[in-house]
Amino acid sequence: MATALARPRLVSLAAGFTDNETLPVRDTRELVAEMLRSQSGGHATLQYGTTQGDPALRRLTAKRVQALERGRLGAAGGALEDRIVIANGSQQMLYMLSEALCDPGDIVLVEDPTYFVYLGIVQSHGLEARGVRMQPDGLDIQHLQELLDSLKHTGQIQRLKLLYLVSYYQNPTAITTAFQKKAQALKLLRYYERWAGHPIYFLEDAAYRELRFTGPEVKSALALRNCANRVIYLGTYSKPFATGVRVGFGILPLAVFQPVMRIKGNHDFGTSNLLQQLLARALDSGRYDRHLEILRQRYARKAEWMKRGLQRHFPPEVQWQEPQGGLYFWARLPKSIQSGLRAKLFRSALEHEVLYVPGQLCYADDPTRPRPNHEMRLSFGAVSRPTLETGLERLARALGDCRSSQGRGTTSQHKLASDQM
Amino acid sequence: MATALARPRLVSLAAGFTDNETLPVRDTRELVAEMLRSQSGGHATLQYGTTQGDPALRRLTAKRVQALERGRLGAAGGALEDRIVIANGSQQMLYMLSEALCDPGDIVLVEDPTYFVYLGIVQSHGLEARGVRMQPDGLDIQHLQELLDSLKHTGQIQRLKLLYLVSYYQNPTAITTAFQKKAQALKLLRYYERWAGHPIYFLEDAAYRELRFTGPEVKSALALRNCANRVIYLGTYSKPFATGVRVGFGILPLAVFQPVMRIKGNHDFGTSNLLQQLLARALDSGRYDRHLEILRQRYARKAEWMKRGLQRHFPPEVQWQEPQGGLYFWARLPKSIQSGLRAKLFRSALEHEVLYVPGQLCYADDPTRPRPNHEMRLSFGAVSRPTLETGLERLARALGDCRSSQGRGTTSQHKLASDQM
Repeated sequence: MATALARPRLVSLAAGFTDNETLPVRDTRELVAEMLRSQSGGHATLQYGTTQGDPALRRLTAKRVQALERGRLGAAGGALEDRIVIANGSQQMLYMLSEALCDPGDIVLVEDPTYFVYLGIVQSHGLEARGVRMQPDGLDIQHLQELLDSLKHTGQIQRLKLLYLVSYYQNPTAITTAFQKKAQALKLLRYYERWAGHPIYFLEDAAYRELRFTGPEVKSALALRNCANRVIYLGTYSKPFATGVRVGFGILPLAVFQPVMRIKGNHDFGTSNLLQQLLARALDSGRYDRHLEILRQRYARKAEWMKRGLQRHFPPEVQWQEPQGGLYFWARLPKSIQSGLRAKLFRSALEHEVLYVPGQLCYADDPTRPRPNHEMRLSFGAVSRPTLETGLERLARALGDCRSSQGRGTTSQHKLASDQM
Repeated sequence: MATALARPRLVSLAAGFTDNETLPVRDTRELVAEMLRSQSGGHATLQYGTTQGDPALRRLTAKRVQALERGRLGAAGGALEDRIVIANGSQQMLYMLSEALCDPGDIVLVEDPTYFVYLGIVQSHGLEARGVRMQPDGLDIQHLQELLDSLKHTGQIQRLKLLYLVSYYQNPTAITTAFQKKAQALKLLRYYERWAGHPIYFLEDAAYRELRFTGPEVKSALALRNCANRVIYLGTYSKPFATGVRVGFGILPLAVFQPVMRIKGNHDFGTSNLLQQLLARALDSGRYDRHLEILRQRYARKAEWMKRGLQRHFPPEVQWQEPQGGLYFWARLPKSIQSGLRAKLFRSALEHEVLYVPGQLCYADDPTRPRPNHEMRLSFGAVSRPTLETGLERLARALGDCRSSQGRGTTSQHKLASDQM
């Protein structure tokens, strides 16, 4: 992000920024004016609140999640708002959960590939991540079972604390996990708990859930019966509303709630009330939903532009799938072309003034396989149509440079490989 | 805080809330309207920024701190803004510094008593805190030297990482540390580094610095020559502007900067841009300073009211000093009256619908002394004049109840003591 902000000519297809044109400028201005119309009305906005978060925002959040699940939350749903903690984006919740649930040396299962900032948290807490292979409809359940079985047989299952997944329009692959697979994964985790000797949590990060622009709605693991004590659900209002307004939330099992509250108390004893009030009003007034509808249409269009750009500029051996929501395309290059930070392609792209997220960054340091190094995450979130077009053209030129130098024979191929070290 | 928010009749002299009457409602409304006047102007406000924090806010912060030190920052001052990281209140910075600098089992030195939320961080990170006795002008340097010496002789000095102090109108005692004492403390820490084998940082939390209403201005440790690599300076904009706008900052030595940036990236990759832009504009427009002047006068008046209330309602054997800034009075009861969470006085105060912060909570679990248990922190920050008056009256009644039951002889005294267990 710092690179993107410092080089004005650079086209960043890397940043997870959202669309500048659709930022809710007017909504925010008017909502803040309402909130601060009178001195007394300003108290709730400009004063400290509670560590757990604004009660109105929690109530509206519970209602919203209930609606997304079409009221299927069952018994655990009644007190949903009491199990909600508001955070500075769902990112802070991810961090706090790692602190609350994991000790150094513990193992977490992640999608392979996964959200790269989560890998930073994993590393900073001294945890090990193991990747569960992905299929077009999410987790490869067969592989998950093999992994669990191998952890059991090698006596490591006691160190396994959770399975983390970005379940909707995943960052980075745009894959959505099928509801049935969530059920199967949870069942497997439960089964292996008898050897772990403790709960293995199912951590569902639904950050992109509301950014759906086509395809069916998919239920979250919250909708599974009798699973409230194992499912941790994260949501965010930053991406669907405004990334400059950092508010997210977690719906937590009771056993996880108190430890997270203690940590939140130490982090900052509560997220800014101004931001929470703003979102509560945006939700309550219907402005949030109207804005979301605009965003969805906008991103659907931008995804279409990126699809056409990729078709137009990229060679056919680059593979990608059209996303049904979210902000990203995931492009697979021929295995002979590496895409990592030290690869010729990445440097060449920078010379052409275009930036992408190397796929390698999204893979855990998993001792069971080398990190794949021939993919890239391309974001259509922030860029305008002409900038997107320019970015893809430049990237195609960088790609062309690498393919032609590759053609020059083994010497340069060898050089390319040694550059990776 | 949750207790205070849930019981409407309760008068809280405990909460570190600021004054509802002086919240900058109009300033905030007008500043946000300016920021969001146009769609393009809204980008900086509603989009992600950088992990380090908004460059304009960092520049204005550096300028402000330079002015407070009257330009004495010397060589290290030139690049001050590059060593600043913006956080969600200075609280988050305290948390991140503990993560960056300390490992479980490490020792930190704190004032005795100290800011009780810091003690929560200490505990959650598995650290040990040792208290440095306080004098009316801050740290007891003689005691600091004895502590350092004892750590050296017992082979524990290698585990000592920092000295933490709330240097202006301290929370909870309202004591301000003299500049000369900062110099002496830093010199001592430097001296003992030869046995520690690593830097021992001087962590100056200046949270209340700008809430001065009488007495001289005192320089921070930043003004000491050649100390930029050991002094960590924390400031906040929350208390002097609005606690619902959670923005603070740290000025960090270079060796500490990168680790904190990594942690900030994992926590939330940057504080909300809306809040940062709001403060940058408040500072730049002069509104912040005008608001601060109003706050200072208001708190000075409220401190005066609390002083008179204490004189009127409290028995003369309760000792307290008049603060020169900040939000707190620190009252010392006769040693025979305990004030802790399980003490009769605390329960009696709750029955009378008044809340204070028991002094005991502000003392570290220091193996070298039992935690003192006969003091209370009284905040005049949030309450109105009549509420303050009511609160002190109720507290005096609770105090009266305890003194009269104490008079009834050894049985009830014994009962009181056993209640503490």
